Amino acid sequence: MAKKGRPRVGILMGSDSDWPVLEQAAKMLESFKVAHEARVLSAHRAPEHVRRYAVSASKRGIQVLIAGAGGAAHLAGALAAQSTVPVIGIPVKSKNLDGLDSLLSTVQMPRGVPVATVAIDNATNAAILAVQILALADARLAKELVQYKAGLTEKNLKADQGLRRS
Amino acid sequence: MAKKGRPRVGILMGSDSDWPVLEQAAKMLESFKVAHEARVLSAHRAPEHVRRYAVSASKRGIQVLIAGAGGAAHLAGALAAQSTVPVIGIPVKSKNLDGLDSLLSTVQMPRGVPVATVAIDNATNAAILAVQILALADARLAKELVQYKAGLTEKNLKADQGLRRS
Amino acid sequence: MAKKGRPRVGILMGSDSDWPVLEQAAKMLESFKVAHEARVLSAHRAPEHVRRYAVSASKRGIQVLIAGAGGAAHLAGALAAQSTVPVIGIPVKSKNLDGLDSLLSTVQMPRGVPVATVAIDNATNAAILAVQILALADARLAKELVQYKAGLTEKNLKADQGLRRS
Amino acid sequence: MAKKGRPRVGILMGSDSDWPVLEQAAKMLESFKVAHEARVLSAHRAPEHVRRYAVSASKRGIQVLIAGAGGAAHLAGALAAQSTVPVIGIPVKSKNLDGLDSLLSTVQMPRGVPVATVAIDNATNAAILAVQILALADARLAKELVQYKAGLTEKNLKADQGLRRS
Amino acid sequence: MAKKGRPRVGILMGSDSDWPVLEQAAKMLESFKVAHEARVLSAHRAPEHVRRYAVSASKRGIQVLIAGAGGAAHLAGALAAQSTVPVIGIPVKSKNLDGLDSLLSTVQMPRGVPVATVAIDNATNAAILAVQILALADARLAKELVQYKAGLTEKNLKADQGLRRS
Amino acid sequence: MAKKGRPRVGILMGSDSDWPVLEQAAKMLESFKVAHEARVLSAHRAPEHVRRYAVSASKRGIQVLIAGAGGAAHLAGALAAQSTVPVIGIPVKSKNLDGLDSLLSTVQMPRGVPVATVAIDNATNAAILAVQILALADARLAKELVQYKAGLTEKNLKADQGLRRS
Amino acid sequence: MAKKGRPRVGILMGSDSDWPVLEQAAKMLESFKVAHEARVLSAHRAPEHVRRYAVSASKRGIQVLIAGAGGAAHLAGALAAQSTVPVIGIPVKSKNLDGLDSLLSTVQMPRGVPVATVAIDNATNAAILAVQILALADARLAKELVQYKAGLTEKNLKADQGLRRS
Amino acid sequence: MAKKGRPRVGILMGSDSDWPVLEQAAKMLESFKVAHEARVLSAHRAPEHVRRYAVSASKRGIQVLIAGAGGAAHLAGALAAQSTVPVIGIPVKSKNLDGLDSLLSTVQMPRGVPVATVAIDNATNAAILAVQILALADARLAKELVQYKAGLTEKNLKADQGLRRS
Repeated sequence: MAKKGRPRVGILMGSDSDWPVLEQAAKMLESFKVAHEARVLSAHRAPEHVRRYAVSASKRGIQVLIAGAGGAAHLAGALAAQSTVPVIGIPVKSKNLDGLDSLLSTVQMPRGVPVATVAIDNATNAAILAVQILALADARLAKELVQYKAGLTEKNLKADQGLRRS
Repeated sequence: MAKKGRPRVGILMGSDSDWPVLEQAAKMLESFKVAHEARVLSAHRAPEHVRRYAVSASKRGIQVLIAGAGGAAHLAGALAAQSTVPVIGIPVKSKNLDGLDSLLSTVQMPRGVPVATVAIDNATNAAILAVQILALADARLAKELVQYKAGLTEKNLKADQGLRRS
Repeated sequence: MAKKGRPRVGILMGSDSDWPVLEQAAKMLESFKVAHEARVLSAHRAPEHVRRYAVSASKRGIQVLIAGAGGAAHLAGALAAQSTVPVIGIPVKSKNLDGLDSLLSTVQMPRGVPVATVAIDNATNAAILAVQILALADARLAKELVQYKAGLTEKNLKADQGLRRS
Repeated sequence: MAKKGRPRVGILMGSDSDWPVLEQAAKMLESFKVAHEARVLSAHRAPEHVRRYAVSASKRGIQVLIAGAGGAAHLAGALAAQSTVPVIGIPVKSKNLDGLDSLLSTVQMPRGVPVATVAIDNATNAAILAVQILALADARLAKELVQYKAGLTEKNLKADQGLRRS
Repeated sequence: MAKKGRPRVGILMGSDSDWPVLEQAAKMLESFKVAHEARVLSAHRAPEHVRRYAVSASKRGIQVLIAGAGGAAHLAGALAAQSTVPVIGIPVKSKNLDGLDSLLSTVQMPRGVPVATVAIDNATNAAILAVQILALADARLAKELVQYKAGLTEKNLKADQGLRRS
Repeated sequence: MAKKGRPRVGILMGSDSDWPVLEQAAKMLESFKVAHEARVLSAHRAPEHVRRYAVSASKRGIQVLIAGAGGAAHLAGALAAQSTVPVIGIPVKSKNLDGLDSLLSTVQMPRGVPVATVAIDNATNAAILAVQILALADARLAKELVQYKAGLTEKNLKADQGLRRS
Repeated sequence: MAKKGRPRVGILMGSDSDWPVLEQAAKMLESFKVAHEARVLSAHRAPEHVRRYAVSASKRGIQVLIAGAGGAAHLAGALAAQSTVPVIGIPVKSKNLDGLDSLLSTVQMPRGVPVATVAIDNATNAAILAVQILALADARLAKELVQYKAGLTEKNLKADQGLRRS
Repeated sequence: MAKKGRPRVGILMGSDSDWPVLEQAAKMLESFKVAHEARVLSAHRAPEHVRRYAVSASKRGIQVLIAGAGGAAHLAGALAAQSTVPVIGIPVKSKNLDGLDSLLSTVQMPRGVPVATVAIDNATNAAILAVQILALADARLAKELVQYKAGLTEKNLKADQGLRRS
């Protein structure tokens, strides 16, 4: 997973079993040519390493954090507690309760410490949100986002034509 | 509601009855001296005005959108569909179902169109998240965020001391 | 998908992956010989096309709209916001949360903008409801609905006899 | 509750304790000058009377049925089972479970027998939906619906101006 | 499905697709040698036949009714509304929402019209409950119930021994 | 709380704070002149007394048990585990979770040990169900149930007339 | 809040607004004469202080940790992640969602890092559980627990007598 | 399943079909060399045996009880009601409702009778919690827990390295 340049986005997951979900975020960032890094750091099994990552992220040039975890999903919240960088949380669908536990654990943060939560398992959207944030000070990304959005519409219209022709 | 300077954050709500919740976002932005504007524009009752607002927001200098709505809460999603600016969604607690409908309608967005969802009724966090996003390219805000975070800790420790002395 | 005559019912879906569900509506309308059209138009990926469709639907002779979407399902609501034609919403079961998000996003509409919601994934019922609406001014449909209803009873009684004989 | 003319809409409720909710439907129909009648007929306490009402509704000129009930809310479904007239269901918030039981009992109808479900306690929307249905063959109503919709937008914009001036 | 003697228990289901669940009730009644009959009668597709069945059940010697249905499950309630015989409701797991809709539609009955609800898909328990009710005036059944209960314990202890030996 | 004669129905509750709910069962049984007794016996705080009550109930002439409890509501299940008498469970609304915990703890019993569950807090229905069960071998009760049911209809129709006159 | 002796139990809460709930734990521990301390330390607002508390707790003689928090309740999990002392979690009822978010965030911990979760807002039980744990190596507590349990039964039986006499 | 020495932990399950889940607890205890025993004793099918087990557990040297059950899961509560030993409850995922019923039935215990609930199906954590409790008076276990925790971190970091190398 070669990522050229100093990473601007950190993708964290509680377990490498979350990678099939989180990988979508990495792929989307790659398609926008946004340098990033992916780490497996559990808030519950490696809290000290999460802390070190969080407090040094900004100094290392990380501008946005993306965190995915399931069940009592504390990773995004733990990062948000220890950094001022925007943290995007992906509730990863757990084996039980259909992802509701992951969602509520990620989104229901207390006053003062927000986590920008996206839909359950929707790592693609976490990456796009990260790009939207970075694009505020990055004209290339801003332009590519407009193209990406146009592409979404185009793809929709193609599906529409496909259905109408069928 | 005096807001000096060109607004960088737009706060939208579906109904003025949501203002008591959304006002917390405005207050927090004021405390960070972030110029903003507040608008009542319903995705369902004034969709054309929402559209115009969304497509022109970026050109008008708006860098982050905050949207709060309840029930089948589509406002944040409608803005995200028509703008590339990051959209922060606040699920406003509805009269029934305890805010679960607002939360799911706001957060469960499809691939390609993220809404950065915060906790139910937590407009304060929406504003802090907006500040975190703006702070990536604004050294003053970055500094003030660090202070704000330190203030959260300080306030916590004071409460701790208060309890221990009681 | 040949549909003779000027369509009276428009079937819209957010993604062509919803077609296996929505197709049931088309089939039921066909069995009632109600001219219709099916379109893939996402409220989030092609909002401008949804708008154009909605505002022109009535002029084009569309009398009822059927919309199916999943997750933060805004399509039916977006149509209802931009048209005065009755809109029937089908909450399409999403991958997570078992369709609860789709249901709440579709049904919990604010005052003034109703969506006539049917059961999760029950596109058949959306079509029947459309026929019931059209039948108010269409004697043929009214008659066929009575036959359809009698057929439901008959089919039930056959199943009853089948079980009793088994 | 004077209602002039032959009623076109029947409003049914399971208990007169539901009247404060259902009355909103009656008021909205009155504002559209749609003749209607309101009845208290429980699917569980007066099933035979519900049946008689349902089977004779169409002959009596009723074109749309609106039914509100709470808990194991069967009234709308019972009407839909015994009539081909479109039935609009209002899940009335019950004392427990926040209306979720009413919603699911109303909306999750089996194939062949749809209930057009609106939001929990949203009798206003049930009436508007009824007007939308009637308007398909009633030019006056069609025109008034356009005005009503414009009024919703206007009211929204006034609230917007009110907030901006505050 | 030969059942000797005048049936004392009626097993009703909304659709023959519910038979694999309901069959467990029939089998348990057979093991207790309780004469019964099974019918497919939908509250929504054959309401008049449900009514006739309900009002004549008692006269025909039926002492307990067992009804299973899914989704907006009204069958048990419809029977309870039209008969004074005890009605046992089995919420049949629906394709969506994991049976929660079936459960709430069956159990949340209004004052005056109870449905004795058992666990989702637990037709076995519906039959045992029916036997418990009949046993109040049937010494043979009372005795067999005691044996059945002893058998449950015995089977449990065997499983316990099996595990301990493993 | 005078109850003449040997009690046929035992009403049990986990805490005397449940009495305001359970009292409705007692009152309804009184109106049917069914001798009963009410006891406060917690499955968790007095399990041995619950056991003694359960195993001796039948010998003491108790024919039906009614049990109400909240939260992790085990009382009805504990009685059903230790008696072959039909047990009716009333999920008592708990302070949190709106009674959902009480409902699921009461109704989701394993194979072999049914609890006849009624709606949350609906002790009235528990009593009526008990009467329906007893009426199978008690002609007076059977007759009075028919009258009670007629009374429900009559009361409904009076409410209907009241509303129509208003 | 005088607490004599070296504390054996640490009671932590995310906010002093949780004290009315957590105080019940302190009171119960006092009634068992178990030395304890109460601290306000938020996992999100003072994570470094939580960490220091957790890693030093055992050395300071703390044998059991009790943590109460609401919403995305991470406090108990954060303690469990950074200590090997048993951690008891109290899901504090949040303003929205009726405590379901607090419960799921507290209980659904990943493999390797358990939190012993008690009922929503049930701080009393957290304290009793702590006493049960300590009693394994403390004969006085073991004896008092037996008395406490007998007291529960006695209190239940008194309520029973009270009701029977009423 | 050879277990040397006098068992200190009792693992109970309602049915041997729960063994695949509960076995994880046994395996984890074995890895810590904690003597234990596993029993199949249903609170509903063998309540008297559960009672005998509970009241004699402490005398037999059992210091912690682990109980797993599904649906209306009463086993852990029944043990807690009849013993002063700490009881750890594992909500076993049921066929329907995704384990929510098991969770609420296990965790929502009334005042005075706690059950230390772990995540749905997480028997591993039940065992670790038992070890944490025993470790308070067992230096070997205390030491091994520190090693176990270090192992969790190590395993996490290996997964991290694995991902970074990929």
